[in-house]
Amino acid sequence: MKIVVHIDEAAQWQEALSEALPTATVVTSEAPADERKEADYLAIWKAPAHLIQEQTQLKGIINLGAGVDYLLKTPGLPRDVPIVKLRDAGMGELMADYALYGVMHFYRSMDHYAEQQPSAHWQPHAVPEKSQWPVGVLGLGAIGRFVASALQQAGFPVLGWSRSPKQISGVHCFHGDDGLNELLSQTQSLVTILPDTAATKHILNAERLAQLPKGASVINPGRGSLIDEQALLNALGHGDQQGHLRGALLDVFSEEPLPGNNPLWQHPRVIITPHMAAPTPLNDAIDQVIAYLHAFETGEQLATVNPDAGY
Amino acid sequence: MKIVVHIDEAAQWQEALSEALPTATVVTSEAPADERKEADYLAIWKAPAHLIQEQTQLKGIINLGAGVDYLLKTPGLPRDVPIVKLRDAGMGELMADYALYGVMHFYRSMDHYAEQQPSAHWQPHAVPEKSQWPVGVLGLGAIGRFVASALQQAGFPVLGWSRSPKQISGVHCFHGDDGLNELLSQTQSLVTILPDTAATKHILNAERLAQLPKGASVINPGRGSLIDEQALLNALGHGDQQGHLRGALLDVFSEEPLPGNNPLWQHPRVIITPHMAAPTPLNDAIDQVIAYLHAFETGEQLATVNPDAGY
Repeated sequence: MKIVVHIDEAAQWQEALSEALPTATVVTSEAPADERKEADYLAIWKAPAHLIQEQTQLKGIINLGAGVDYLLKTPGLPRDVPIVKLRDAGMGELMADYALYGVMHFYRSMDHYAEQQPSAHWQPHAVPEKSQWPVGVLGLGAIGRFVASALQQAGFPVLGWSRSPKQISGVHCFHGDDGLNELLSQTQSLVTILPDTAATKHILNAERLAQLPKGASVINPGRGSLIDEQALLNALGHGDQQGHLRGALLDVFSEEPLPGNNPLWQHPRVIITPHMAAPTPLNDAIDQVIAYLHAFETGEQLATVNPDAGY
Repeated sequence: MKIVVHIDEAAQWQEALSEALPTATVVTSEAPADERKEADYLAIWKAPAHLIQEQTQLKGIINLGAGVDYLLKTPGLPRDVPIVKLRDAGMGELMADYALYGVMHFYRSMDHYAEQQPSAHWQPHAVPEKSQWPVGVLGLGAIGRFVASALQQAGFPVLGWSRSPKQISGVHCFHGDDGLNELLSQTQSLVTILPDTAATKHILNAERLAQLPKGASVINPGRGSLIDEQALLNALGHGDQQGHLRGALLDVFSEEPLPGNNPLWQHPRVIITPHMAAPTPLNDAIDQVIAYLHAFETGEQLATVNPDAGY
């Protein structure tokens, strides 16, 4: 069995997989072309198209993350090779920690204190009851459900939204277009964890951002395509002029790395993180990859990605 | 029964107590002197000395917070009037949220991202396993125990310290001077929640701060007296010159409000919040005050403050 790995820190993956599967040949995408050929499996994250196109006997592709949008847009992706993806390989906890940090940042007025500090301005702000701080979560897949539950356990009322109806204990679930409008109108902090599909592109446009209450905040650890960045900038206001929204914590962008001249970088009410909300934790992920390889090899039934649905 | 209230937003307390105790006379310290006289109980937070000295038939003092250092230093405080204090009136959760925010800030490299943002520098930093990020908690009273448990439930290894031995499920407890040194040497983020007593003054001095591993961070939602501020500044380094410590999130100071010329305000690796880590949540606190008044009136046995111990 030959496995080709493409991801940041691929050498670590190569070592861990080789150790777990001593009879397999594991190479990284850095290996010479003839060593990469005739792979049985690709374990990849944002791989170059040629790595897929050059394969002739592929039995499966393992996407080393929960988002498959990049992979599905790769030219020459074979239609007949099953694709599986990591489902919340510890990513739920990472994403939940990031979301909770963002919610706390605004809930506890850390943005105001940061603004006050340069002028040595000592001004406490009251901490509202958590019951008065509903958090909206858009996207209730494996990770979204985890994040919603974590925020609920932290004491916030949580409103969740997905296209089709879902039920999550302790979370008020909405669905469909009407449900989205209803959720937005009640949300103090909004967390977006939807996949990148045609249906979710700019789901937060100017009109939807305006449905949030004045002073609401946005936390996006999901996908850059979910938010119309220009509409967000307008809603945040310019310079000292506070707009409809209070602030944003953003991890993902329409273009990454975020270009240096993008005004989000310099906006006083925006915090930028460089797509690190949920890096795949190696150990958990390795275990999943091994389970997938075993399932492929033994012909076990697998939940594969549906390229037409986009997830 | 007459109760005199002194605290920020005393009117709210007056209203809530009057409603709960319709036969009692409840006035605030803003009332004219003759209306304040002959109180049975004082429910106070950082009250002026005259408010205590002018009383002639006091049956009890209720300290509207967990820290009694300010009260015990008040000139003319009668030795024969029992003092009770609010024990974690929802303050545990507020303090735990603050501590967790601070730990996450450093654990998730939010300090580095904030530093990178003005120059549009896109540079992800790896997220270590939580098992590699031990959090130390100094002080294991009601609030400290709550905070330690919350951090442990968030996935961090937690080391706790108190002067005398304690046991808390899931927390590695140290005590005494040797225990403190051992804890410090293993701690990535240190949370200080000790009371302000003669024994805890500057417990974090230059020598102890140096025992923390290089790159450790300090979060102080406890008391300003716990940290030698000059030693902390030295340990943080000056300007761009990174010192032994990575950063600090500070809520309390040797002098409050923190004077505008204190260099902590302008330090690039310090976050200042204006003593708001755990404002007393009104509803929980009111319930406790009522229970105390009832216990005083019926002669019930009460856990009172020991002025000699300082807590």
